[in-house]
Amino acid sequence: MIKKILIANRGEIAVRIIRACAELGITSVAVYTDADRHALHVKKADESYYIGPDSQAGYLSIHRMVNLARASGCDAIHPGYGFLSENAGFARQCEARGVIFIGPTAAVIERMGDKLAARAAMIAAGVPVVPGSEGNLSGLDEAVVLADEIGYPVMLKATTGGGGRGIRRCDTPDDLQRNYDRVLSEATKAFGSAEIFMEKAVVNPRHIEVQILADAHGNVVHLFERDCSIQRRHQKLLEIAPSPQLSDAQRELIGELAVRAAQAVGYTNAGTVEFLLDQDGSFYFMEMNTRLQVEHPVTEMITGIDLVQAQINVAAGLPLPYAQQDIARNGFAIEFRINAEDPQNDFLPSFGRITRYFAPGGPGVRTDGAIYTGYYIPPHYDSMLAKLVVWAPDWDGLLRRGRRALHDIGVYGVKTTIPYHLQILGTSAFIEGHFDTGFVEAHPELTDYSLKRSSREMAAAIAATLAAHRGL
Amino acid sequence: MIKKILIANRGEIAVRIIRACAELGITSVAVYTDADRHALHVKKADESYYIGPDSQAGYLSIHRMVNLARASGCDAIHPGYGFLSENAGFARQCEARGVIFIGPTAAVIERMGDKLAARAAMIAAGVPVVPGSEGNLSGLDEAVVLADEIGYPVMLKATTGGGGRGIRRCDTPDDLQRNYDRVLSEATKAFGSAEIFMEKAVVNPRHIEVQILADAHGNVVHLFERDCSIQRRHQKLLEIAPSPQLSDAQRELIGELAVRAAQAVGYTNAGTVEFLLDQDGSFYFMEMNTRLQVEHPVTEMITGIDLVQAQINVAAGLPLPYAQQDIARNGFAIEFRINAEDPQNDFLPSFGRITRYFAPGGPGVRTDGAIYTGYYIPPHYDSMLAKLVVWAPDWDGLLRRGRRALHDIGVYGVKTTIPYHLQILGTSAFIEGHFDTGFVEAHPELTDYSLKRSSREMAAAIAATLAAHRGL
Repeated sequence: MIKKILIANRGEIAVRIIRACAELGITSVAVYTDADRHALHVKKADESYYIGPDSQAGYLSIHRMVNLARASGCDAIHPGYGFLSENAGFARQCEARGVIFIGPTAAVIERMGDKLAARAAMIAAGVPVVPGSEGNLSGLDEAVVLADEIGYPVMLKATTGGGGRGIRRCDTPDDLQRNYDRVLSEATKAFGSAEIFMEKAVVNPRHIEVQILADAHGNVVHLFERDCSIQRRHQKLLEIAPSPQLSDAQRELIGELAVRAAQAVGYTNAGTVEFLLDQDGSFYFMEMNTRLQVEHPVTEMITGIDLVQAQINVAAGLPLPYAQQDIARNGFAIEFRINAEDPQNDFLPSFGRITRYFAPGGPGVRTDGAIYTGYYIPPHYDSMLAKLVVWAPDWDGLLRRGRRALHDIGVYGVKTTIPYHLQILGTSAFIEGHFDTGFVEAHPELTDYSLKRSSREMAAAIAATLAAHRGL
Repeated sequence: MIKKILIANRGEIAVRIIRACAELGITSVAVYTDADRHALHVKKADESYYIGPDSQAGYLSIHRMVNLARASGCDAIHPGYGFLSENAGFARQCEARGVIFIGPTAAVIERMGDKLAARAAMIAAGVPVVPGSEGNLSGLDEAVVLADEIGYPVMLKATTGGGGRGIRRCDTPDDLQRNYDRVLSEATKAFGSAEIFMEKAVVNPRHIEVQILADAHGNVVHLFERDCSIQRRHQKLLEIAPSPQLSDAQRELIGELAVRAAQAVGYTNAGTVEFLLDQDGSFYFMEMNTRLQVEHPVTEMITGIDLVQAQINVAAGLPLPYAQQDIARNGFAIEFRINAEDPQNDFLPSFGRITRYFAPGGPGVRTDGAIYTGYYIPPHYDSMLAKLVVWAPDWDGLLRRGRRALHDIGVYGVKTTIPYHLQILGTSAFIEGHFDTGFVEAHPELTDYSLKRSSREMAAAIAATLAAHRGL
């Protein structure tokens, strides 16, 4: 069994992992830089260690992390998301030094991190992929010929990229000419590899992802899907489980596809299979995230399963305690990312001191955060302060409770995305459950919230829209 | 439909009702005294009105409340718990002035508030009651004869009492002689009535109560039971749903008994039927609480049903949207009452300023509170600051998550019951799910928590106890 875990991360996800450790009776070890001396994850962990003055270097140093794990007597490392979480070299170093890496094997991380290898594995497993190049592009000439073949628009993608970087859409041959060198250069700079490939651009798809869990004994289950279509510049703003846009047949289909994808690559631990859902109803494999996702709580809310505890148990060698038919889903959940950003100023980060923080509460409301009254948000990290997660038995109730919870939470001293989320909830398309990845771009008016609508007016608007939509 | 609700209460329950109003698109109206100017319920309500300098008088004035409801355009009043919530005169005044009272009818409140009338109604409905006097006692002579008949120990109870006051246990004829005049005097002073009756004392019973919901169209359902056996001087410290001490057959039985009890008296709205579970497995009707209970959240956590919204909808005349077979239960929930009290000093109230408040979070954790960093707890009211409510799929997980959440929440500046709850969770009897109303008295050592045990040690102790108990 695992007795002590080093958490190679910070902020809310470090706090989330500390909570799982506490429930399992596992000692948690936090790390911190100068900027994070007063961070909540440091206060909450059983032990914590300083990893240097630089705000990034410590969190990104494989050797420092593995050495610290060994020196502090940890038998495992949880990487969280971001930082080293999808670094195969980190997982390999852990394996080599006898520290359990809480995630899939280095070989699987490497394979799924290589977009083309992942694509090939999916084709072999019979999981549909977006039409595109068979391998890396040899040069612009090949790109032009191929784009003509599969039809514009097309996407140019860095083969080893991720997180929305190293990706460009080309609508015309001119676009393609212009972007080719840019993506090549981004790929080289950001990911240290000049390999790029091409895919047909699926225009305004829905982003649907399936949570899977796999143990080391060959058992793989899925925990239904999340709808992450509400994005801004490839960054998710809010996530929903299950998707209000899928039929039960579609839900069953992608669940099965995700399990097949995981089995095909010998996946272990928690992972996410991301799909594009085209306007014509086709699903295409997009990529696999070989780590815990930011939005994992919505899945926890509808299944009752603690994903971080499951990760730890699976990493310790335990078999999954449930089969697919034991996993039920109940109601709807939504996660609002509460970011220190000013939506009215192009979502510019808004760092500084939280002068007052009022935690929300009441039925169906969960928060995963790393803030408190008086906390100074350092400018060096991600702008996400907290995740406001809401559950309700049905979609209508979720909209009403989500709106209430966004009014209930209070973050003062910095600008946040709270009013923007309220605007989304007041949009007909969202209320009706019809939205795709073009939603934010199609609704520039959402940042115009100078005129506050009262809670009652918003409720009436939601009720009217729902009634009209349902023909009540 | 109800459009605007006056909340005739304060603190956490007022905040709870405001949240339900917000989700239903109903305007909420709060009231406050001088002591409550900075209370959270005032900040959160859509409107709020000052009801005078006295800390109690305003919250207890029927006329002021009903007048204010009418003057502010409210079509309904929610009484919360405590204060006027079980005052039949208040409900009657609302009925007379055309304001919807969110609760049962005045006639039902009156009948169930009269212990002897309630008892008679239960006997007529075939619901088992504790053996005792057929009506009020005529005097000490009758009491002595009756006590000999039913056997010591017996309880003397004020007929119109409640909340643990006006009740005394008599173990011997001497006790009975000594206590008779005391209870008579308490009854007269506290409840304005010299009527008292006698019941057989059920020694160290389990306190099991069933949540019911009834609409105005004759539909009655139960939402399973809560175990409130962990009490100190008749005040509940924590509550659990469902009870870990009942078999499914027992659960079904008391559910049916509670529905029968509600039907027998023509009950409407939410209510609670309290039972004593004797050591020999017998259930006895104790009393019916004709209002929302403090501990309603644990029922919400295992059923997904919002009880306050249900109360409002039923009061508006809507039929219940579910039948008994539609109501499923899922997992276990526990509510810890976080009181500003010093358990090591006989639970003396500990009022003052909350210098720092760290809200807990993560999976399965809900808070219903009325505190924030910088809030000054006025000494005039109940010492309960917040309810920490935890859900987990099973009993073992509930113990582990409960412990984690108690470590996770941080309330500084006043003494609280948090460490005492941690002590309870570390007790073998509690872990094994065997406890009765004598638990607190039987464990005086629980206040001895000067020697802190680490999270890991406690987890190990819990695991060892569970393993031993289950014979694993």
